[in-house]
Amino acid sequence: MKALYFDGKSLTMNADYPKPKSGETLIKVTMSGICGTDLEILKGYMSYSGVLGHEFVGIVEDSDNKDLIGKRIVGEINAGCKKCPSCLSGLERHCQNRTVLGIYKRDGAFAEYISLPEENIHVLPDSVSDKQAVFVEPLAAAFEITEQLHLEPNWKIAILGDGRLAQLVARALKLSCHDITCFGHHERKTALLQKIGIKTKSAIANSDEHAFDVVVEATGSESGFLDAMRLARPRGTVVLKSTIASQNKLDLSPAIINEITFVGSRCGPFRPAINALATGLVSVDDLIDAIYPIDKYVQAFEHAGKPGVLKILLES
Amino acid sequence: MKALYFDGKSLTMNADYPKPKSGETLIKVTMSGICGTDLEILKGYMSYSGVLGHEFVGIVEDSDNKDLIGKRIVGEINAGCKKCPSCLSGLERHCQNRTVLGIYKRDGAFAEYISLPEENIHVLPDSVSDKQAVFVEPLAAAFEITEQLHLEPNWKIAILGDGRLAQLVARALKLSCHDITCFGHHERKTALLQKIGIKTKSAIANSDEHAFDVVVEATGSESGFLDAMRLARPRGTVVLKSTIASQNKLDLSPAIINEITFVGSRCGPFRPAINALATGLVSVDDLIDAIYPIDKYVQAFEHAGKPGVLKILLES
Repeated sequence: MKALYFDGKSLTMNADYPKPKSGETLIKVTMSGICGTDLEILKGYMSYSGVLGHEFVGIVEDSDNKDLIGKRIVGEINAGCKKCPSCLSGLERHCQNRTVLGIYKRDGAFAEYISLPEENIHVLPDSVSDKQAVFVEPLAAAFEITEQLHLEPNWKIAILGDGRLAQLVARALKLSCHDITCFGHHERKTALLQKIGIKTKSAIANSDEHAFDVVVEATGSESGFLDAMRLARPRGTVVLKSTIASQNKLDLSPAIINEITFVGSRCGPFRPAINALATGLVSVDDLIDAIYPIDKYVQAFEHAGKPGVLKILLES
Repeated sequence: MKALYFDGKSLTMNADYPKPKSGETLIKVTMSGICGTDLEILKGYMSYSGVLGHEFVGIVEDSDNKDLIGKRIVGEINAGCKKCPSCLSGLERHCQNRTVLGIYKRDGAFAEYISLPEENIHVLPDSVSDKQAVFVEPLAAAFEITEQLHLEPNWKIAILGDGRLAQLVARALKLSCHDITCFGHHERKTALLQKIGIKTKSAIANSDEHAFDVVVEATGSESGFLDAMRLARPRGTVVLKSTIASQNKLDLSPAIINEITFVGSRCGPFRPAINALATGLVSVDDLIDAIYPIDKYVQAFEHAGKPGVLKILLES
């Protein structure tokens, strides 16, 4: 089968990659999405080599669960050992022996076929289009915040960033909190946020300091981390939604003096994301910048890596 | 009056320092304690200049509240504006306009007299000795953890460090959790912890990785921060109890992947600390290494700064 393989150095299309033969549910991939994590992996993140891609929609071709065959589905990307305390408590995404689709020890979705454990599969309602379905995984990561924190409806929320992740976080949190401000300086992107009732600011004003109950860091930059400490109120919460490696001296004293809580936040629950898309509570169509056939992957990745670009999809 | 004044460069005894005339409650200091924060201030922390010292016990000499006069007391160190949302909600220690005894814009307790707002004063029961009373402030900072987190009794707790702060944190948390391990390598200090039922380890074993529900960082070193990420279970909590300024690149990815929560923790509630000392639930007598008359401050500070030393007290 065709698969987009990353050998740790370069990304190449392999026309004869072996089709998965794992005894898991076999899925023919219809469409997939390029994520910031994919771009990071190409730069060395996770030291991953294998088939890339973890945002996808597809059709089940084979499964031990015969009811799944022929169904249009999305799939959770973490596959646990099913034996450890994390797995037994329903948190397979924290299994220390897990594999992760297209990220860690498991071939990903930029291919004709993938396999996943049957438990990872979610059948899609007809009201979710293929293009929308590709957003289930990153939107679930946004809903993870609502699983980790009890968001009070009157809280003031700040989101740092206006990119792919920030856009989805804003859309997910809007269902819980009405007063959300995104800090971003790309006019096209902040315009999309304004349309759905999110306030936007291009810079932090003095009156913003220590004014927010929750701050979501979704820029991935070190300045984002420092800005988050500046925006959070005493005893407020900063959600770390993007991985940050500080290049400079990082002084955490302000966080201790103001007793800030930091919450690392990663993959999330698929069901609320599917429901929000199915009912139209969350819109994502405006986030798609282009769709490429997977054979045009060079152009697609180039496009995805350009500043200001939101979501690029691939058709398998 | 006599006062130990820090001008930003050196610490000197001033024999004619003006006695406080603030209209606040006036306290004659009996005894005070040298804290790690004092040693940090001498190195430049908080850019403070003024009279040092924030751990003390004393006798009220004058107050608008006549019932306080002659009473043996301790005092909360944060004085708020009494008008802002933090103050009105009872969290004066997070008032953005606060002064802090011996730390920020308010002369401290290494002196004959200090003044504090009447609301900051706590009258001591007879069962708490003067020496023990000096520990109320740092012990309150340890109890702050129990105010910020709901500690489940069966949780496994790790404390990084065996110094002044770690010793008090261990004693405070022992009242909530039975399974506590301190990581420290000073034999004399770990012996004190073992005596009160705390397990101690000199190094992190493989089996300790991701094995603790809560990890309290009380070393103040960058390696402490990295060790805390290593010890905390997925979705576990790391309490940052000492200020950390990282000198190197600090990679927070593990914290995001394992969805660790970090909680900055500072000053705490005095009442539980006083009660724990009054009832004997927490012992601190074994933590006192020496008592100096305040005139011997040079020797006292030298002693307090030596590695392996626990608490040094000053008699006014």
